[in-house]
Parts: sequence; structure tokens; C-alpha cells
Amino acid sequence: MSDVEDWYTERLLGRAGYSLPVRKRLHKERSAFQEIEVFDSLHHGRVLALDGAIMLTELDEFPYHELLTHPALWTLQKAERAFLVGGGDGGTVGELLRRDGLEITVAEIDERVVRVSQEYFPELAKSLDDPRVTLSFADGVAALREAEGSGLDLVVVDGTDPVGPAAGLIESEFYETVAAALSPAGVFTAQTQSPFYHPEAITKIYRGLGEAFANVRMYWGVCPSYLGAFWTFAYASQERDPLRDLVPPTGLETRYWTPEVHRAAFVLPPFVQACLPEGHPQRTHV
Amino acid sequence: MSDVEDWYTERLLGRAGYSLPVRKRLHKERSAFQEIEVFDSLHHGRVLALDGAIMLTELDEFPYHELLTHPALWTLQKAERAFLVGGGDGGTVGELLRRDGLEITVAEIDERVVRVSQEYFPELAKSLDDPRVTLSFADGVAALREAEGSGLDLVVVDGTDPVGPAAGLIESEFYETVAAALSPAGVFTAQTQSPFYHPEAITKIYRGLGEAFANVRMYWGVCPSYLGAFWTFAYASQERDPLRDLVPPTGLETRYWTPEVHRAAFVLPPFVQACLPEGHPQRTHV
Repeated sequence: MSDVEDWYTERLLGRAGYSLPVRKRLHKERSAFQEIEVFDSLHHGRVLALDGAIMLTELDEFPYHELLTHPALWTLQKAERAFLVGGGDGGTVGELLRRDGLEITVAEIDERVVRVSQEYFPELAKSLDDPRVTLSFADGVAALREAEGSGLDLVVVDGTDPVGPAAGLIESEFYETVAAALSPAGVFTAQTQSPFYHPEAITKIYRGLGEAFANVRMYWGVCPSYLGAFWTFAYASQERDPLRDLVPPTGLETRYWTPEVHRAAFVLPPFVQACLPEGHPQRTHV
Repeated sequence: MSDVEDWYTERLLGRAGYSLPVRKRLHKERSAFQEIEVFDSLHHGRVLALDGAIMLTELDEFPYHELLTHPALWTLQKAERAFLVGGGDGGTVGELLRRDGLEITVAEIDERVVRVSQEYFPELAKSLDDPRVTLSFADGVAALREAEGSGLDLVVVDGTDPVGPAAGLIESEFYETVAAALSPAGVFTAQTQSPFYHPEAITKIYRGLGEAFANVRMYWGVCPSYLGAFWTFAYASQERDPLRDLVPPTGLETRYWTPEVHRAAFVLPPFVQACLPEGHPQRTHV
């Protein structure tokens, strides 16, 4: 046992809790959209929490940020214009910038997340200052609606749990909006929650994606600081296939994603397949 | 938020905590070896905890028990005699019994774990009454030492964290003992902790295994109710290879393990490869 007295505790839907010992509380504010907290933990480094849910820890943010981006990055036919919804901490942008030539428009609804990240997570947030990044403090759904027909190569949603400001990001109308903004060879990726806590949300998400895109695949990895830990991600495209179209990058240093991990991540245990809607091509064992 | 007042909280090394809301506390005792607790939770069903650490929940015990057993079960040349160290709750035995003809000797050091499991987890513990199971309340290390030269087909360690009664289970002498009890085509499997909390233990385990066995491979899966969640397992044998020798079973219903998941589980992200000792064949990206 540690002699630390102060623990930060997240409670998910009254169903489970996750706690980290606090070395030092650094920041707490209520923005127009959510409560933002930053603290230094004992083992996980610095931690960002939004509305009582841990968004990232320095120790284990890398599986999430690599998984959200690299499967799309290395299967794109063309990688010139990306649109990111959310991701104000900069972690996702940092990974997206690893593909040469890709320019990224970021629509983060809460400017305060960016400012707090710039102060407390400068290594992550510095990516937002890259000349290839255009940052706006806007509702991503509305901004994407304006991008209809613009033939984007990539749309990524780096969202919180689909409640509050992020609730609209799992509606089927949203996926139609995304599809209309992408080129036929464009790719959409998003985190799609844990089957241990949100099986119904997963079913709803993949049903909506299946209506908007010809090719929809789920992949997964471990996010230890998100309750449920078994974390799913969606890959959707009209034309691209994440397994057929992978062009492994050379010399890319990563901690979680590799071309081999990529292929393995699309293999789903039966209990996860069971969350997918009827007719989904990955329902091979249910 | 739930209106449940009572939460069960596990704290790991003062580094992180995991909590489940308690619907009803059912049992608490201090056996000769450890504190044993059972409670009904709100979302995870019934829960067993030993010395303040959650061992299993009805919701998510299946990844652990399937991963600990099926990779070995379906790569064995001969599957007649297995030896299990620990596993007094019966979950591992239940999976091992799914291979026809396999007889299992169980050495559980703490009889009270078995008795408590029989009372509160009858669906898991009933496997211990199977006529193919021989149950003894004994120190598994000593019992395996007596099995030297007996040509076992399979040894499984279903152990707690390697502290207290289980500390001896990650010493290199123990792996020599296991190797001496197995036939050359025999297989050893064990859980080997999480790289997020126990990287040094993992290095030590795989160094010891590498000295005792010709073929040592790590595989992994998600155990959401174990802090760290990214959970590693060892496969070790003088002659068998878990990828080359897989003979997929027909008609086996599982929730996590499948032949496809099997192959994917041996693909390691670089951050996990980095925990393996120098020279280990799975260090391909570090």
C-alpha cells in the first residue's frame, strides 16, 4: 500500500470504478462543455480527465492513439486531407502527422481542452501547432456537414463516451454526414467503446456504419485506463479494405501498432462478434 | 451514478485501484493462506477476491480461463495427464475438461478456496467433482517435484500475483521442476502478469522459462477485472510449437478463444516485446 492519501476515482455508470493515486492536483475547471481536470499520478504520469472520466494517462495513452490512427493511415490510397473531430489534447494529431504530406483539420468543440493540454501536456499538444494542422473550435458534426462533397481522404473521431457533447457521434445521420464528406477511397475511424459495458451502443454504431459504408470492420486493442479495457474501433470505407490495402510503412517506430498487430487486431473473439449486428461480415463464430 | 453505498476496492501496489459496487457481501474469512472474500456486484455478477485482489467475476472470467487453457489444449500431441497448480475455483479445470480423455491432477494449496467456491460458484466448482479430476490440497511446487520423470502432457499454473504463496511460481528452479515433470512433447502454460505493472517480473519469468524449455512463447489477451488488463501468458515446451502444432477442435463453443484468436494472441506489440529478455524470438520490433 502507498501512503498517498488522495486518490482520483472514476466511476462508470455506477458499475465499476478506477482510481489512481494523486501525487499532485494541477488543474480543475468547468468549461462551457465539461469539467476538465489534470493531475500527476504516482505510476501513470500525468492524467487528463473530462467529466470525471480519465481520457489519457502518460503511461498508457499510446495504445489508444496508435490504434485510432495507424490502421487508417497505412491503408489509405491517397493521404492529403484529414478531418479530426475532437482530439484537443493533440495525441491523435501527433500520430496522424506521422504520415508525410497529410494535412489535418481539427474541430475540437472545447477550446479549453486545447489550452489546458498546451499547458500541462506540451509534448502531446505541440502537434496542434504543426503547420500542417488547422485548428478550429467548432462542433465537428456541423463542420463535417459543411464539408459534404469535399472528398476528404480521412475522417477520425476522437470522442469521449457517447453521452453529453459526444452523443451525436454515434447516430446514423452522423455516419451519413461522414460518408458524404469522404471520397469513395476515403476512410473513417473512431473508437467504439467496450463490449463489457456498452454492447448495445456497439450494435447501434455498427448498424449505422453499415448503412453508410460498403466496408465496415471492427478492430480492437487494450486501453488499460478505460474501464472495460477491451476497446473497439471502427474502420469504414466505400472502397478501402483494411486487410487487403495495408501498405506497411518502413522505419516507423511505434509502441503498440505494427503491421502484424494490425492484422491481429481485426480478429474478434466470439463475445465481441456477438455485439455486431446481424449480417456483419465479422460474425463468423456466433 | 448508482445509489449503491458499498464499493469493494482493490488497490494494486498503491499504483491503481479497481472498484465494484457491492450488491451483497456474502463471505469473508482468513484461511491459513489468505483472505477470501465473495460478494455479489451490480454489473459483474458474483466476485471472488483473495488477499484484496479480484480473482474472478462472473462477467469477465472467461477470457482468463479460456486463454490459460485452450492454446495448450489444442496443440498437445498427447492429452492424457495434466497437472494444475492452483485453480481452486474450478474455472480452469472446467476448460481443461473440454479436451476428451484428459485426466487432471489439481494441487490447490488452500482447501478453503475450493470449499468457498463450491458454496458460492457452484457452476465453476462443479468441474472439481468430475471423475477425471484428482484434487489434493497441497503445495503445487512440492507435488510437481515428486512428479519428476513422470512424463506429464500438460502443466498449468493458475496462480495469483507472484507474491505470498505464489512467489515460488516464477523462480527459475520452479521451471526446471516443471520441465522435469513434463514429457518432451509436454506443454507448460501460466499467466505471466501485465506489462503495465510488472515488466520486471515478466523479464524474469521468460528468462527462467528460456533456461528450462527449448520453445517459449508469450501470448496475451484482455482480463478487464485485473488491473493492467493487457494480460500475458506463457507457452513453453521442449518440442511443441503453439503455432505450428495447432489442431483446431471442431464444434467447440467458446467466448474468447478461437483458432483465429489463437494465432493473433501470439502477435506482440513492441512495448510488450521490450519486456522479454534479450534473444527471445518474439523480440522482432525492439
